[in-house]
Amino acid sequence: MERIKPRTLSGFMELLPAEQMKMEAIMAALRESYALYGFYPLDTPLIEASEILLAKGGGDTEKQIYRFTKGDTDLSLRFDLTVPLAKYVALNYGSLAFPFRRYQIGKVYRGERAQRGRFREFYQADIDIIGDGKLDIVNEAEIPSVIYRSLTKLGLTRFVIRVNNRKILNGFYAMLGLGDRAGAIMRTVDKLDKIGPEALRELLITGETALTPEQADEILRFIAIRGGNAQVMEALEAYRGRNTVFDAGLDELAAVTGCLADFGVPETHFAVDLTIARGLDYYTGTVYETTLRDHPEIGSVCSGGRYDNLAGYYTDKALPGVGISIGLTRLFYVLQEQGMLSDSLPTAPAEVLVLPMTRDVAFAARVATALREAGVRAQLYTEQKKFKAKMSYADRLGFPFVAILGEDELAAGKLSLKNMKTGKQQLLSPEDAAETMRRAIAETAEEKPIRG
Amino acid sequence: MERIKPRTLSGFMELLPAEQMKMEAIMAALRESYALYGFYPLDTPLIEASEILLAKGGGDTEKQIYRFTKGDTDLSLRFDLTVPLAKYVALNYGSLAFPFRRYQIGKVYRGERAQRGRFREFYQADIDIIGDGKLDIVNEAEIPSVIYRSLTKLGLTRFVIRVNNRKILNGFYAMLGLGDRAGAIMRTVDKLDKIGPEALRELLITGETALTPEQADEILRFIAIRGGNAQVMEALEAYRGRNTVFDAGLDELAAVTGCLADFGVPETHFAVDLTIARGLDYYTGTVYETTLRDHPEIGSVCSGGRYDNLAGYYTDKALPGVGISIGLTRLFYVLQEQGMLSDSLPTAPAEVLVLPMTRDVAFAARVATALREAGVRAQLYTEQKKFKAKMSYADRLGFPFVAILGEDELAAGKLSLKNMKTGKQQLLSPEDAAETMRRAIAETAEEKPIRG
Repeated sequence: MERIKPRTLSGFMELLPAEQMKMEAIMAALRESYALYGFYPLDTPLIEASEILLAKGGGDTEKQIYRFTKGDTDLSLRFDLTVPLAKYVALNYGSLAFPFRRYQIGKVYRGERAQRGRFREFYQADIDIIGDGKLDIVNEAEIPSVIYRSLTKLGLTRFVIRVNNRKILNGFYAMLGLGDRAGAIMRTVDKLDKIGPEALRELLITGETALTPEQADEILRFIAIRGGNAQVMEALEAYRGRNTVFDAGLDELAAVTGCLADFGVPETHFAVDLTIARGLDYYTGTVYETTLRDHPEIGSVCSGGRYDNLAGYYTDKALPGVGISIGLTRLFYVLQEQGMLSDSLPTAPAEVLVLPMTRDVAFAARVATALREAGVRAQLYTEQKKFKAKMSYADRLGFPFVAILGEDELAAGKLSLKNMKTGKQQLLSPEDAAETMRRAIAETAEEKPIRG
Repeated sequence: MERIKPRTLSGFMELLPAEQMKMEAIMAALRESYALYGFYPLDTPLIEASEILLAKGGGDTEKQIYRFTKGDTDLSLRFDLTVPLAKYVALNYGSLAFPFRRYQIGKVYRGERAQRGRFREFYQADIDIIGDGKLDIVNEAEIPSVIYRSLTKLGLTRFVIRVNNRKILNGFYAMLGLGDRAGAIMRTVDKLDKIGPEALRELLITGETALTPEQADEILRFIAIRGGNAQVMEALEAYRGRNTVFDAGLDELAAVTGCLADFGVPETHFAVDLTIARGLDYYTGTVYETTLRDHPEIGSVCSGGRYDNLAGYYTDKALPGVGISIGLTRLFYVLQEQGMLSDSLPTAPAEVLVLPMTRDVAFAARVATALREAGVRAQLYTEQKKFKAKMSYADRLGFPFVAILGEDELAAGKLSLKNMKTGKQQLLSPEDAAETMRRAIAETAEEKPIRG
């Protein structure tokens, strides 16, 4: 028979079991965090009619989309979770209660040029809160709390949730008489981290924005506003009264920063940052980026913002919302590269490997069943191998416990429970073994998937 | 602006939030059951190179597959989880420890003719145990235990796990000198449930199998063997000694039925059924089908079997295995149609809706945060609506509790916790409220997603 060389497409992540266990732990932690805030889990098809996904069209989307026909139907794979959400809300408007909060963790597809660390199939983990006509500002204030709790639960400790407000930026540029150039200026300012303030000043003057030196200086002074929330808000107050859009943005930012402590977000993990703007034609209010203090080169690991019109392509209903997204596959890849995935997280497929040393499989089956009844994850290994090969299987998969069933154990109706870390071995009834393991499991339950 | 009518493709399931909650409960229960047996979770790409997926080729697969090109690459969407597993094991052979146990719950794609209750995108929930060269029979004996525990955990009670062994069938037909016609006979016998024994006899004689009346009678006598496991095994023993393949199959079946009680499977939920055969060119030993006693028309909800060669298209390594699959999307659809999805399963996105009645959102944020810290899923509702509209939101989403924060509560630093089912309302500290809800949640934790 002619064989086909097995391979996985480049740009498609496929993990070995131990790594997959870590990914599962990350996804479970996110699901749990999101659920704590009352977000519904949502699932939508990976394939949609092309006219739906390409309603907005243009730019990279059309180039990168996986589009094909089946029969007469023009189909595409989703390239994000936002467009399917927009379709879902427009389609089911009458059946949903607003605000509608949903999270979705799902794969999306972008046919980007293959490149190390770039994926064509990747998970996004999104949350959104959609209002019907209106949406209270407190929803925007709650988002940093979701981010803080989620990332902390994953095990990340040194990160900063950076927040800005698009109305503040738009209002500020309007104050300077630069309202028509606001977009181009934001795109240029976005380069600050990469090129530094001096080159940015030069670019603002000589680039497409064509500012006067005075205007450039004014902008550089503005975006340099830093410090604690109180300081930043005070500095911004100095601009109040010159533009109504700016003032509205300032009120929103005050509402967001004012609730942080009440929502459990420490000030160490939050910063107003006037340089961030996010997608230019979509966000209209608060915008969020989250960076790791020790790895700024990774960029934002969790971003999003407030928008006014989720589903304008599909409905005349005004559907404002606020949402954030984590690019989970890329985040996982980067954390792995940086050695930030926990080594102490259990990666075995079960807590205990049940190893019969005799051919009395009935006893082994009863032991495995008793352990499972007690809620212990137990794998039964009955392959007829030497003791050494069996223990090496247990070692290789990293089982924390092995239950050895030899002649003596069989005679006593008990098992020898071996703790693979300490080497300690105890003769126990299945019930006592379950209890021993339950206690050990409870101790490692707080093990987090990421170190950082 | 010209609007595009939002729609979801036909054959693609997209659930409303309350229904999705039930689907999530089903998937969580399956993940939990599978994990109890030491199966790794696995995730593989939805897109593979067409040459990989179509290595076997032929038949419905080529017609139904979603195949397309991107750049120069010939791609296809997976149509099951078995072929990607075969590729994965062949590709990662050196990095895996055998037996390799994995479960995978994922979407697969088949461009079938659109039809009520037929899906083009659907979830399969698979488990497989793969051996390296050999695989102990006890693995086959353990599968009914996985099925029993999983379906019971979902809430199903009246079902039967039917088991047969392909070697028994092959050996039996060889005994009759019909080894070359075994496949055709099995295909014909498979119609028994639909056409009854008399029409089957007729078909065996006049159809492609062209049997003599004596041969047909012999087969009908054989497949009519029914009763308790002991009875069936005894009746089968009468055939022993005439064909080595038959005898080997009988030993395997004895090993499977002999372990049932030890694996916690009650005899009421298990039956040897000599009529089932499953896919003809794939399974080589034990085969499984699971039917609902009250809904035989649904067909098998969980099927699979033992195979000798998982990945012959990709590797010369012998990789025998045993696995089962649940067609989850179709099962969900049928249960919904039959009214078998539980109404008492909580479908709200959180346990409590926190409702501030004043504009002191800081207090509301503190209350919501305290509840979340205590592990209670809490949604904060700050839209400025009338009391009635707020309560109607809580009603519509089915929150079991509402935390009302009025002037009095604010002054006392407490909340009024209303039990939406009993109507009972208590003034409590956030900590006491969390404790009250935790107790109520623990009571409903055993609520199962399916009735039946």
